[in-house]
Amino acid sequence: MSGKVLVLNGPNLNLLGTREPDVYGAETLDSIEANCRARAQGLDLELEFCQTNSEGQLVDWVQQARDTHDLLIVNAGAYTHTSVALLDALKAIALPVIEVHLSNIHQREEFRHHSYVSKVAVGMICGFGGFGYEMALESAAQLLTKK
Amino acid sequence: MSGKVLVLNGPNLNLLGTREPDVYGAETLDSIEANCRARAQGLDLELEFCQTNSEGQLVDWVQQARDTHDLLIVNAGAYTHTSVALLDALKAIALPVIEVHLSNIHQREEFRHHSYVSKVAVGMICGFGGFGYEMALESAAQLLTKK
Amino acid sequence: MSGKVLVLNGPNLNLLGTREPDVYGAETLDSIEANCRARAQGLDLELEFCQTNSEGQLVDWVQQARDTHDLLIVNAGAYTHTSVALLDALKAIALPVIEVHLSNIHQREEFRHHSYVSKVAVGMICGFGGFGYEMALESAAQLLTKK
Amino acid sequence: MSGKVLVLNGPNLNLLGTREPDVYGAETLDSIEANCRARAQGLDLELEFCQTNSEGQLVDWVQQARDTHDLLIVNAGAYTHTSVALLDALKAIALPVIEVHLSNIHQREEFRHHSYVSKVAVGMICGFGGFGYEMALESAAQLLTKK
Amino acid sequence: MSGKVLVLNGPNLNLLGTREPDVYGAETLDSIEANCRARAQGLDLELEFCQTNSEGQLVDWVQQARDTHDLLIVNAGAYTHTSVALLDALKAIALPVIEVHLSNIHQREEFRHHSYVSKVAVGMICGFGGFGYEMALESAAQLLTKK
Amino acid sequence: MSGKVLVLNGPNLNLLGTREPDVYGAETLDSIEANCRARAQGLDLELEFCQTNSEGQLVDWVQQARDTHDLLIVNAGAYTHTSVALLDALKAIALPVIEVHLSNIHQREEFRHHSYVSKVAVGMICGFGGFGYEMALESAAQLLTKK
Amino acid sequence: MSGKVLVLNGPNLNLLGTREPDVYGAETLDSIEANCRARAQGLDLELEFCQTNSEGQLVDWVQQARDTHDLLIVNAGAYTHTSVALLDALKAIALPVIEVHLSNIHQREEFRHHSYVSKVAVGMICGFGGFGYEMALESAAQLLTKK
Amino acid sequence: MSGKVLVLNGPNLNLLGTREPDVYGAETLDSIEANCRARAQGLDLELEFCQTNSEGQLVDWVQQARDTHDLLIVNAGAYTHTSVALLDALKAIALPVIEVHLSNIHQREEFRHHSYVSKVAVGMICGFGGFGYEMALESAAQLLTKK
Amino acid sequence: MSGKVLVLNGPNLNLLGTREPDVYGAETLDSIEANCRARAQGLDLELEFCQTNSEGQLVDWVQQARDTHDLLIVNAGAYTHTSVALLDALKAIALPVIEVHLSNIHQREEFRHHSYVSKVAVGMICGFGGFGYEMALESAAQLLTKK
Amino acid sequence: MSGKVLVLNGPNLNLLGTREPDVYGAETLDSIEANCRARAQGLDLELEFCQTNSEGQLVDWVQQARDTHDLLIVNAGAYTHTSVALLDALKAIALPVIEVHLSNIHQREEFRHHSYVSKVAVGMICGFGGFGYEMALESAAQLLTKK
Amino acid sequence: MSGKVLVLNGPNLNLLGTREPDVYGAETLDSIEANCRARAQGLDLELEFCQTNSEGQLVDWVQQARDTHDLLIVNAGAYTHTSVALLDALKAIALPVIEVHLSNIHQREEFRHHSYVSKVAVGMICGFGGFGYEMALESAAQLLTKK
Amino acid sequence: MSGKVLVLNGPNLNLLGTREPDVYGAETLDSIEANCRARAQGLDLELEFCQTNSEGQLVDWVQQARDTHDLLIVNAGAYTHTSVALLDALKAIALPVIEVHLSNIHQREEFRHHSYVSKVAVGMICGFGGFGYEMALESAAQLLTKK
Repeated sequence: MSGKVLVLNGPNLNLLGTREPDVYGAETLDSIEANCRARAQGLDLELEFCQTNSEGQLVDWVQQARDTHDLLIVNAGAYTHTSVALLDALKAIALPVIEVHLSNIHQREEFRHHSYVSKVAVGMICGFGGFGYEMALESAAQLLTKK
Repeated sequence: MSGKVLVLNGPNLNLLGTREPDVYGAETLDSIEANCRARAQGLDLELEFCQTNSEGQLVDWVQQARDTHDLLIVNAGAYTHTSVALLDALKAIALPVIEVHLSNIHQREEFRHHSYVSKVAVGMICGFGGFGYEMALESAAQLLTKK
Repeated sequence: MSGKVLVLNGPNLNLLGTREPDVYGAETLDSIEANCRARAQGLDLELEFCQTNSEGQLVDWVQQARDTHDLLIVNAGAYTHTSVALLDALKAIALPVIEVHLSNIHQREEFRHHSYVSKVAVGMICGFGGFGYEMALESAAQLLTKK
Repeated sequence: MSGKVLVLNGPNLNLLGTREPDVYGAETLDSIEANCRARAQGLDLELEFCQTNSEGQLVDWVQQARDTHDLLIVNAGAYTHTSVALLDALKAIALPVIEVHLSNIHQREEFRHHSYVSKVAVGMICGFGGFGYEMALESAAQLLTKK
Repeated sequence: MSGKVLVLNGPNLNLLGTREPDVYGAETLDSIEANCRARAQGLDLELEFCQTNSEGQLVDWVQQARDTHDLLIVNAGAYTHTSVALLDALKAIALPVIEVHLSNIHQREEFRHHSYVSKVAVGMICGFGGFGYEMALESAAQLLTKK
Repeated sequence: MSGKVLVLNGPNLNLLGTREPDVYGAETLDSIEANCRARAQGLDLELEFCQTNSEGQLVDWVQQARDTHDLLIVNAGAYTHTSVALLDALKAIALPVIEVHLSNIHQREEFRHHSYVSKVAVGMICGFGGFGYEMALESAAQLLTKK
Repeated sequence: MSGKVLVLNGPNLNLLGTREPDVYGAETLDSIEANCRARAQGLDLELEFCQTNSEGQLVDWVQQARDTHDLLIVNAGAYTHTSVALLDALKAIALPVIEVHLSNIHQREEFRHHSYVSKVAVGMICGFGGFGYEMALESAAQLLTKK
Repeated sequence: MSGKVLVLNGPNLNLLGTREPDVYGAETLDSIEANCRARAQGLDLELEFCQTNSEGQLVDWVQQARDTHDLLIVNAGAYTHTSVALLDALKAIALPVIEVHLSNIHQREEFRHHSYVSKVAVGMICGFGGFGYEMALESAAQLLTKK
Repeated sequence: MSGKVLVLNGPNLNLLGTREPDVYGAETLDSIEANCRARAQGLDLELEFCQTNSEGQLVDWVQQARDTHDLLIVNAGAYTHTSVALLDALKAIALPVIEVHLSNIHQREEFRHHSYVSKVAVGMICGFGGFGYEMALESAAQLLTKK
Repeated sequence: MSGKVLVLNGPNLNLLGTREPDVYGAETLDSIEANCRARAQGLDLELEFCQTNSEGQLVDWVQQARDTHDLLIVNAGAYTHTSVALLDALKAIALPVIEVHLSNIHQREEFRHHSYVSKVAVGMICGFGGFGYEMALESAAQLLTKK
Repeated sequence: MSGKVLVLNGPNLNLLGTREPDVYGAETLDSIEANCRARAQGLDLELEFCQTNSEGQLVDWVQQARDTHDLLIVNAGAYTHTSVALLDALKAIALPVIEVHLSNIHQREEFRHHSYVSKVAVGMICGFGGFGYEMALESAAQLLTKK
Repeated sequence: MSGKVLVLNGPNLNLLGTREPDVYGAETLDSIEANCRARAQGLDLELEFCQTNSEGQLVDWVQQARDTHDLLIVNAGAYTHTSVALLDALKAIALPVIEVHLSNIHQREEFRHHSYVSKVAVGMICGFGGFGYEMALESAAQLLTKK
């Protein structure tokens, strides 16, 4: 395997496909995970995929990833905009981070325009729905190769 | 029963009656729940009543209510002012929400004037202490009847 | 009678039922008054109900209420957001005030989020349409009993 | 007649011609009304023209116009910048509104740059002195024809 | 007589002596007027003294003063902070204006720190209770003498 | 001829009629020019009409107009809100400027509420679609006559 | 003597009469002092009058006044707007303070609208030139009598 | 061909590889174009690739693309943050837009955090250097297939 | 024992010594705890020391401390800046709070300058690394003695 | 001696014990100095202790300390919040600085929340009254030992 | 020659001498260029001098200067305040930049106080009219000598 | 002599050459004075050169210069950004002022971007180190000649 990637999903992403479909589309988190696994295989990446509604759990998972993974793909949902704790955890571990959002957050409410994750992420991909996760995997493969 | 109502209480409301009585009065959360149960019976509403200090737990409960309840009464305490995750959960489920606060939040510190819950709530009742929950139940009965 | 309540209505509320029905619903001010009178009777409250488009008239009525009423229910309409004179009048008389709004003002334009009335009101009820007046009467009865 | 137009003038416009002539010119409100009447006749419009220093009176007149006029030309003077009540009245009646100002308000004090009337007006004409009223009448004729 | 002075009092000043005595003291508007009349006599000034809760009435009185008085003493109460119409009226008439407040407005809520009247007043006297009116009369006498 | 008028049109106005018709209507810039030419003839005005997507080109044209025209009608499109260079050019030449916008810019996004052109324009006409250009010509004729 | 009054003058007031006469008038600080001495005698007040350009010196003088004077009249000049040290000194001693400014500071640059002295002063008198000092003495006599 | 894609590059991108390599890396715009052409061929996309330092030229190219292309990939460089004209052009043509930035703009100066292009773009990809263009092409292929 | 002290550590402090050593130094939380235990013994204080990444857990621990401890030393990490829930819990229990930060938060990003804990803390110690905890214990001993 | 420490006290601290005892306690600066001398002896530190009301004097003392002391303990009083000159002096000399405040400045007026001294201080201790100076000495001893 | 200097002039500077002479004086750009050429000769500097109204042209010229000049003197006129593209171009080439303005921009409208050019310029000279260019040349000679 | 020039230096400039050499360079104030004296002689200017850390002293010196000098060159150091007293002194004397800063203040902390001295200075020279003083002298000679 060329690298181990952890995909972290924040609050309410488990409702995907049922929640505000005009904003997020009809994909479910399961179908996104399935697409990611297929794509990861082609890129020779090992994938872990998880979701939580708890800020503290997100921080725990980020901390644990330091010893077990090579790169994080993070869609922190609402915690993107409010969690300094998540920012600190991401800074504390030295792994590259790719930020993903399903919708184009720059077109939504003002308080969604700011992202704490962006302060430590290599880059951001937003607005492409579940396909954005696959783009992130492509980019992850390229970043891990360059290292 | 004409409807099932979930009453969600956020952080520190379990301390009610012991905490800053000049702001919140001497009622306890238990006495409020008791009054609510009495009132709910008169209104033919089924009532669930719970409290947590955890933002993630609040989000979990909101998500679960989608399949089990008809309406939410939410006093999110401090998370009212900071939790985008709670806002997203409330938007994701399609149930009507009634926002309650014991004190008149418009008379307290500036950072308590803004409410994320208000962005999705049918209406807000604040400043009437524990009696505000009973008013919310009256309104819930009326809303569920209109439906 | 257990108490005398004055219900003050501010500018444009006389147009109710004809004005932006998607925001305010199809109730008229007359039907709200009728519902209030019925509810007041059950609560043993004496009710006066009036409306004006004039800020000065509102201030005059508030001042006069000092000697004639026990409690004010105030829906000041647009003057909620702009009238320091109304705030001063409400502070000057020592009566309890309950603030009512038909719509949830926290979901409307930014300049409607701030209320001068809130600075002196016991509490606020908003978003429940004309039913909010009835909730205010319930609360009035409870407040006047406690005194 | 092709339409009935109400021209509303707000506070202090009755002093026109005597008040700060470097800002407003030497025209009087009477001479503007005379020019308007001449122009209206040519456009086959029926004209009512009034002035008040009272915000409540302005709101009353707007409300009454709903049943008696087809279009409003509004120079609300100082209430342009402060009256949410006027905004609400103009929204409540469904008539087209043309906003007029004698001076170019964008060149005056900061607090005159914002207009509540603009939120509901078809358009704004400012900076052309009393002639702006005549331009508004031209536009009124065109708008009423299009209907 | 060396000059005619109009003393304008805005909303709620008629409640003086009964309203928030810790802020405004126990003087009534009548006792202030009496003191003013005594002081005016000594200064050879003719005095008119009036009060209203209506913004439009204040504007009307300011406009009328142009032909009947030499100087205005203005305590506009709450309209101090909100009335552009009053500012425009005071600018339109060419009379000197002395601004008076009973309390020191710079020590009260933020929204009372700004005064539209100050933009046209010769000077401001605040914080000296009813005695401030007498100080204003002293100053009026001096200003009218200098002319 | 009583005067030479230059009508300057800024970026994207060449797309008129095809672009966001719910905001700008179905008129094309050619039809507006045709209406303007007809109206100008009746007013004895000579008309030049041009459009560019380039800020520098707008500045060049304004500079050249100093020696060739008597008045400018300017619809600077997006440069209205961002171009200090255009403001400086308009100030540098001593010609009267009339500002026109098809839509009511006060009802659109916040960043469209501010206009650099307004700082030098005699007046602004907005919200009347292509007819606003004709109103500007009427006003131009009046202004050039007064000179 | 009914009381001892210290009149403190801040930076650049020694230039009075030579400095921006259109703002401050042609009085000198000496002539103001002379007028004050005359007025103080009539009021049975003992007067000390001093000026400095140094913030530290102002603080020293305020501290010393605690044991030697009954009331302070303070025109702190530029330090009005910038000196927290002066504010702290005035708070630390328990004497009443009357704030005086020659010009109406509310009509000057934005940074002159805020006063640290106002936070502790009984009241403010501004805009009456040197005569304002005499008004302050009148008020001082009244305040010291009331004590 | 499954679709025609126009890649627009704004000011200073022609200097790529020579300019601030710590921010943008050592790639040149030519090498990015070469990679894009290779990737486009694999995706069956026809590619046009251009660069300009002129805002007006960018607007012209966007307008022309309406009839010749199916999708735009836009790296507007500095105009991202300042050009309302570019925003209007992108809105006027009805084509999907993908926004690309070489660096993560959320980590740079405050004034680079805001993007006018984001208001109309399907999504944004930033922080992945020249590889971001290839990600954009992948996404373009997916978007054009879905249509 | 002269008192029982609870030392609460917030998110990511468990990573201490491995995380951004240029900001926080090479101490681990274990070595800080060991130093605290030694110091506490000398001061006759009983010590409990704990850490969590969860906001809700912090609130729970604070609530429980009400019955078991005499004083809290709180380093809430990132929740310092975002948690109103923590503030409310600390206010609700009546124990003295000492706020500690390893780094000088006033020298870091703007969003770290504000602390909700400061609103209820007796005092703050920041910038002294792990030694700050020992200073807090010294101060705790002194505070508990004074009681 | 292990090090020479200069303790600088800013304006009004000489009034300590007499000034606002509810904020600062009843300690005098002399008693604090005495406690500091006792503590310094135990820590083998040489102590100089001084106070001034003058910003310029503070800057002078800081400059002189460069050649005579090893560390500064600074309680700049009001100059904490306003003196860029003090900040520049502290930056210019290369000595470590410990910032002390008697009260918890984060709980006082908004303008006391910002500190220029914090920009160069190793750390801040506030809210512990005179005991904070002793804590600073403990920390000074530790810092000077580490060097 | 000791160095080649490019003097870039932005929009409307070609109108110099005819435009707002009270702000910019009666010099023309030609006379400034002549003075510069004379001064440059004395300093052994080779001079190129150009002007444009186009932002894109300015960027082009800056880019080309990288291979042909040693230092830039930039008076970007209005683009000083709005052009991020110019800032990026100046950063991209590694040449020293001296910023010049004819007027003192700090005394003009608020939006002229900010300069993007200042972010990369060695220094700024403003307020000295055309003579400022000569000062810049003196400074250029000194800077190029030091290299 | 063609004119007498006073060069005023504010706080901490006496430390020059020892203080933050990466910002201010290695020049000392003495070497700058020496260069100024040489340059002044060539320009037939008489020079006085002084420095102080005291705001009050700066104000005193400015006041005295009114009768003894023809022009001021002012580098007020930190007082540039905070001293309204200095601004008032400079306005009060009618002499031309040239503002100098060693560093480019627009590239430093936000609070150094604003200058009170700029409000009265003919012009500003910043970023050229000690050579900026010589440029100021050149400009002084030119200004005094023009008079």
